[in-house]
Amino acid sequence: MPELRKDPIIGRWVIIANERAKRPNDFKADQAGMKEVLPCPFCEGDEHMTPPEIRSIRKEGTKPNEPGWDVRVVPNDSPVLRIEGDLNKRPHGIYDMMNGVGANEIIIETPEHIDHMSDLSPEQISKVLLTYKERIEDLEGDKRFKYVLIFKNHKPAAGATNIKHCRSQLIALPACPKSVKGELEGARKYFEYKDRCVFCDIVSQELSDKKRLILDIDGFVAISPFAARFPFETWILPKKHSSDFTSIDKNSSVGLAKVLKELLSRMNKLLNDPPYNYIIHTAPYRRAKEGYWSSIEHDYHWHIEVIPRLTRVAGFEWGTGFYINPTPPEDAAKFLREVK
Amino acid sequence: MPELRKDPIIGRWVIIANERAKRPNDFKADQAGMKEVLPCPFCEGDEHMTPPEIRSIRKEGTKPNEPGWDVRVVPNDSPVLRIEGDLNKRPHGIYDMMNGVGANEIIIETPEHIDHMSDLSPEQISKVLLTYKERIEDLEGDKRFKYVLIFKNHKPAAGATNIKHCRSQLIALPACPKSVKGELEGARKYFEYKDRCVFCDIVSQELSDKKRLILDIDGFVAISPFAARFPFETWILPKKHSSDFTSIDKNSSVGLAKVLKELLSRMNKLLNDPPYNYIIHTAPYRRAKEGYWSSIEHDYHWHIEVIPRLTRVAGFEWGTGFYINPTPPEDAAKFLREVK
Repeated sequence: MPELRKDPIIGRWVIIANERAKRPNDFKADQAGMKEVLPCPFCEGDEHMTPPEIRSIRKEGTKPNEPGWDVRVVPNDSPVLRIEGDLNKRPHGIYDMMNGVGANEIIIETPEHIDHMSDLSPEQISKVLLTYKERIEDLEGDKRFKYVLIFKNHKPAAGATNIKHCRSQLIALPACPKSVKGELEGARKYFEYKDRCVFCDIVSQELSDKKRLILDIDGFVAISPFAARFPFETWILPKKHSSDFTSIDKNSSVGLAKVLKELLSRMNKLLNDPPYNYIIHTAPYRRAKEGYWSSIEHDYHWHIEVIPRLTRVAGFEWGTGFYINPTPPEDAAKFLREVK
Repeated sequence: MPELRKDPIIGRWVIIANERAKRPNDFKADQAGMKEVLPCPFCEGDEHMTPPEIRSIRKEGTKPNEPGWDVRVVPNDSPVLRIEGDLNKRPHGIYDMMNGVGANEIIIETPEHIDHMSDLSPEQISKVLLTYKERIEDLEGDKRFKYVLIFKNHKPAAGATNIKHCRSQLIALPACPKSVKGELEGARKYFEYKDRCVFCDIVSQELSDKKRLILDIDGFVAISPFAARFPFETWILPKKHSSDFTSIDKNSSVGLAKVLKELLSRMNKLLNDPPYNYIIHTAPYRRAKEGYWSSIEHDYHWHIEVIPRLTRVAGFEWGTGFYINPTPPEDAAKFLREVK
């Protein structure tokens, strides 16, 4: 009998199709468009191929836009939003609109031509994570922005252009995205009812159940969510409650880097180098630290969602937000735990 | 300058990337997996290849599961939900789940081996639409179900198995899907504020603006939504307010069939036979006709969403529900209006 499971945060129902459960080898990852684009604009020595850098972690004595860096942040040269200008919020008849103002940056994760984040050292990944933190904090100064989304598209089937050099992206938005709002509202309702953070309750149940637990390293867990939408969807959460990704520090960022590296390399082995996305869900900017905003600190909990792109989303999913997952999360977690 | 536009019903923001606007020829439809599966289980004469029919429109004197039908409804032989059993709603620690009980039916739209719905006559399509209506009404008798979703997946890239015989699907669900709930709530808020149906206001603005209007035939309009998520996304709405798709009758179903046929054949020509999905959004079952439920009748408005599958959804979209649409809806409507 298939199961219907409800996401405890936003109330989304998912069909877990355990009767036709799919194993890792049942998926054929879409390797479309893998002809590489060369020369690579993200390699050390080719700094002139990108717009001037916004920020970098570099060796002492080296100059911006020259070799000598570890992590480099540059504007996306075909940005989806524009950095200059006013929002000019306005009606259009019954509709609402504003100018497409925002930031769109590329975080180049290594000076070497390496395709997989999981091939970087934990120390290098930690530098990438601290760069995310720094960018989110820096952009808070721009009052037009309400949210910064950090995400990674790996491979063309996951929305990336085909340059085999690992990187992530940042988009700063003038409105809080709907899916983050949904999580904030769901987490608040749970907190009002239980006086506990729903994510903390999830972490605690998964640590005691163990069936959906994949990794538990240095203060972070990787779990298969109970109501996972996609096969092998995995969430990484800090065990210690925190609403903001920017609460990570040099020390904890190495722990997070270890979990991320380990998870991505296991997915890579188990699922034959699949296209994937990850996204960081963190609290929105709260420039007013009171009223509605102050409670986010206890009721929300930042996390990373990692989604291998193994299935196609059909009309049913678009039409209902009711996902069909052919791999029970308990099976996915077991496979990922057992990868050598 | 790109634009940020807000969907007036559910408040979703969309980036309209008008600076790098894409024209119909810029999209390469994914024609993956087009090797046909034969013999076709949906052709007249091959009735034994499907499970026994649930319902059919057939010529007088012919028997079920024999030739002589116009439209035939059969259970999906690998259903995502099971028709037998109790829901058995239960907790699993902090989580909620129930048995995967539901109906999953295939509506075979023609006895002939025809791939495109747009190649059927309006009279034939009208029979398909009246079959949808009959199935939704019939399933209301099963108190386990709260919602019936009717949808079509055309071609493998849109989630279909590769049988070139036009058909749609129905899934009856024991919970109202999240995206329908979002529309119901948004429409209710709008009604409370304005004392008008938001969809009626949309129809009225589009009829006067004309920039996003594609078709206006026999009481139905096809429009490019102001905050379309996808290039060439199109909505079909009845001009006369109605919350329930089941309010269509023999007469109005022919008008709706004409709009659907015309729209699908224009998309087919303009976008080079793209994979697409359509879904019908109608009000949920309201067995208690009072309280919360009674207001749905005036504040909700059924419609069909047609989505050609031309772009890939990347991490950014999954992470935020913040879509990037590279074809401004006004351009899409103009292209679709001008197809000969």
